[in-house]
Amino acid sequence: MTRKAFQDFYPDHLSHCYGCGRLNEKGLQIKTYWEDDNTTLTVFIPRPEHTAIPGFVYGGLIASLFDCHCTGTASAAAIRAAGLTPETAPAEPRFRFVTAALHVNYLRPTPLGIPLEVRGQVKELKARKVVVSATLSAGGQVCATCEAVTVQIPETFLAAAQ
Amino acid sequence: MTRKAFQDFYPDHLSHCYGCGRLNEKGLQIKTYWEDDNTTLTVFIPRPEHTAIPGFVYGGLIASLFDCHCTGTASAAAIRAAGLTPETAPAEPRFRFVTAALHVNYLRPTPLGIPLEVRGQVKELKARKVVVSATLSAGGQVCATCEAVTVQIPETFLAAAQ
Repeated sequence: MTRKAFQDFYPDHLSHCYGCGRLNEKGLQIKTYWEDDNTTLTVFIPRPEHTAIPGFVYGGLIASLFDCHCTGTASAAAIRAAGLTPETAPAEPRFRFVTAALHVNYLRPTPLGIPLEVRGQVKELKARKVVVSATLSAGGQVCATCEAVTVQIPETFLAAAQ
Repeated sequence: MTRKAFQDFYPDHLSHCYGCGRLNEKGLQIKTYWEDDNTTLTVFIPRPEHTAIPGFVYGGLIASLFDCHCTGTASAAAIRAAGLTPETAPAEPRFRFVTAALHVNYLRPTPLGIPLEVRGQVKELKARKVVVSATLSAGGQVCATCEAVTVQIPETFLAAAQ
């Protein structure tokens, strides 16, 4: 793991996301790292209110974790493919991705109160499109899986936010 | 529309969901109604912190709205198919659904600050499985679409929560 997460290097105007923005005080502030050369890792402990029925995590949170984990993974993979690191990569659209499609399969109820581990792997890496598959585990059991199609952040989208 | 939403009739122990539980004070408390005979409607105004980049809604919230909208729709459809209404349906597992698969396509950035309208239609209705397709619109434009496979709540899952 690097000491800082991928999201810690997002430029300020892209750091307000409820899921992963370090500047969103009310948000989830998820942090994603390389676990090894091929796998990214986010560890997140849901809040007590993130319940579905008592004792289990609601599906929307799981989708949220996958969403930001996968765009973070896409960013890190694009940066690495350019021969850079999150520390050295310039704040350019080519390194920022948004989700075009998020397909989540819920395999079993996800227990609330223990750390959730989201792991992702890049399945396809193109200049403007990165496909990431991911799993979410709790206590060593995979509870959900995901495939996310992410695309380079549109210039118009980026311009609107500045 | 009925005066009360589908979720207002969920039994107490199934009313803590962060997305749609009327007893979750920190949650989204989404409310779903029949708009007409074939379409269900949820209207939700995201909070300012539900941002992706400034001015737009983060993808995880959109997935969360779809998730609870579709399970609510599945419940209402199953109740109607049994010749009952949310007011008269007993609190039985056959009328409660959880999400097995949630496939979201993000078509365009979703603006923050205006009401989002989620509309759903039942595509397949079986005793233990209901498939719902849905759209999310803002200002009359469809920003995201979804297909959710929902399944009758497992007895074990239900028992664990009581």
